[in-house]
Amino acid sequence: MSGPVSNTAASALALLERDGASSVCPLRWEGGFLYLLDQRRLPEEEIWLSYTNASEVAGAIRSMVVRGAPAIGIAAAFGLVLEAYALQEAESAAFDELWMQAAGLLQAARPTAVNLMWAVRRMVNVFSLNKDMDSMDLPELLEKEAIAIWNEDVAANLLMGRMGASLCPAKVNFLTHCNAGALATGGYGTALGVVRACKQMGKTVHVFADETRPWLQGVRLTAWELMKDGIPVTVIVDSAAATLMRQGRVNAVIVGADRIAANGDVANKIGTYSLAVLAKAHNIPFYVAAPISTIDYNMDSGVHIPIEERAASELVSYTSFRPDIHNPVFDVTPNELVTAIITERGVLVPPFSHTIKAVLPPLSVQ
Amino acid sequence: MSGPVSNTAASALALLERDGASSVCPLRWEGGFLYLLDQRRLPEEEIWLSYTNASEVAGAIRSMVVRGAPAIGIAAAFGLVLEAYALQEAESAAFDELWMQAAGLLQAARPTAVNLMWAVRRMVNVFSLNKDMDSMDLPELLEKEAIAIWNEDVAANLLMGRMGASLCPAKVNFLTHCNAGALATGGYGTALGVVRACKQMGKTVHVFADETRPWLQGVRLTAWELMKDGIPVTVIVDSAAATLMRQGRVNAVIVGADRIAANGDVANKIGTYSLAVLAKAHNIPFYVAAPISTIDYNMDSGVHIPIEERAASELVSYTSFRPDIHNPVFDVTPNELVTAIITERGVLVPPFSHTIKAVLPPLSVQ
Repeated sequence: MSGPVSNTAASALALLERDGASSVCPLRWEGGFLYLLDQRRLPEEEIWLSYTNASEVAGAIRSMVVRGAPAIGIAAAFGLVLEAYALQEAESAAFDELWMQAAGLLQAARPTAVNLMWAVRRMVNVFSLNKDMDSMDLPELLEKEAIAIWNEDVAANLLMGRMGASLCPAKVNFLTHCNAGALATGGYGTALGVVRACKQMGKTVHVFADETRPWLQGVRLTAWELMKDGIPVTVIVDSAAATLMRQGRVNAVIVGADRIAANGDVANKIGTYSLAVLAKAHNIPFYVAAPISTIDYNMDSGVHIPIEERAASELVSYTSFRPDIHNPVFDVTPNELVTAIITERGVLVPPFSHTIKAVLPPLSVQ
Repeated sequence: MSGPVSNTAASALALLERDGASSVCPLRWEGGFLYLLDQRRLPEEEIWLSYTNASEVAGAIRSMVVRGAPAIGIAAAFGLVLEAYALQEAESAAFDELWMQAAGLLQAARPTAVNLMWAVRRMVNVFSLNKDMDSMDLPELLEKEAIAIWNEDVAANLLMGRMGASLCPAKVNFLTHCNAGALATGGYGTALGVVRACKQMGKTVHVFADETRPWLQGVRLTAWELMKDGIPVTVIVDSAAATLMRQGRVNAVIVGADRIAANGDVANKIGTYSLAVLAKAHNIPFYVAAPISTIDYNMDSGVHIPIEERAASELVSYTSFRPDIHNPVFDVTPNELVTAIITERGVLVPPFSHTIKAVLPPLSVQ
């Protein structure tokens, strides 16, 4: 994958700027600092926070300064770069042990998105293969790997965008959920990458964005980033999606994914399963756009995917009232409800247990 | 209907207090004033606002101080009582014209719930039949009618509760949407009346309450009033309902209605249609509990039911960000997705065009 992409941080942004692909990016790597756009404060304020070690980055992932499966993977990779430089500077005798602890911390920051584990595993691979080399060079190697992860993610999104867009009619009304956009990735987006590619291919595009309770990613992030790119977007409450489908106002549902099992079951933001059932009932295609790094080949089906439950306060932040609250933030959509999974290696169709196996990545990154 | 119910305001409350049916009531009629519990400020504060004329009551209905199809019908009836007393006191020469204007104003306060039109029509009937009598007695007659509307609503809810509960197993997990409870009616509730009756009949009851965006009636009102009555309730985001159904944690979906067409199509809070599709996909019964006053015999199907669109600010009150927003606050569930309609005259089952006709009320109140 990394062949055509040069190993510099600038290249990810250069890819995005080429023909004005997207104006939004959730992270910057500059002067030895990781900067994250604080997504808790969007759309009111564009605040960039800086990070200098893995523990801080893990905190940013937990508290959702950065969110979105691919984006938290990239952030975690840079967290491990920061940690390597920090340990090197401190001339720590326990470099290996402390760095591996940091990897464990980052990997455990959130449980559902497998891209986080995947990115950390890639970094650990580089670390393990090179830890006996001159330790002066190890942080630099890790930095190159993190930049490669970022570049590859953007390149994958651009590819997925084009392939996904080719599935869509010349005039297309999308319904999307949560934010699977530039802000959830290295840039450009997975589901919203397909939307952007439609626009770049000259199609007439409109997006209905579920507001996406409880964290409101749909209105706060998806509407915001699409408006930045001049793409028409209308926000609805999550429960209005069914009526739009019944009214014939939706041509395709398109979402991202936090983890895809080997059989094609898809874990994604709570509410995704609901949309998939509704799409099927209304004969509307249901597309999942996700890079290969989202596939968990070790998981036969979605049944065992850990579903994060977050604080009740996410639902009742506006009040002191505290009823009993159940707040699972992901759900699992069974493969039979998925029309196609759009990846950077092709559009996968049922039976997914076969087609997913066909894009199995090399063992080294498993 | 008014036969067994004595014509005093106290009797509605007495009905509710009999064996502790419910501890919540959204209105009071005392000393010539209408008092409404301000539902915009629940659950933080229990503020009672007082009203002295029809225009004020229409404003309360529009701004959702009082909401819920049966409750706004009752409030409108009392609004017309207040108007009659006020016009009488002012010795207005244009009593008839001004009172009828007030009736039009109240009827137009919100477009979807037919109970509002129905209650105003009942008041106009009394007015028309008696306007040539000694005008000193007319306000009192109107007051008796408004009290009868309230009493009948509570009596209907108690009847619906028992009939609906008889459909439910001894251990039942309900899923409900919005607030079809004591706060939405004269007291006790339609959908939540069935829940309360289950508890009173000794069944083991648990309620999953959709938070119900954008106005959050589920968490702010449903959870609050059920907790007051000691009924276990768990709040979820609207989009989590599908997953609970898939996990086998829901035995029945039960909702209220704002208008039911003659063929059984049901207009209710946005998101109801979504739940009906999901219930069918998971083989879960979908019940609608509503008094006969909710049926619009003049409407052949739900296609023509006017759907209110409310302000975009209801979705984005927490931010200055203003994307394009579509905010329809009701939807229509086609009759084929409805398992049964629970009314005070019996549990109606398909084909609804026949069973609904069988409970046709006397022409006088049509």
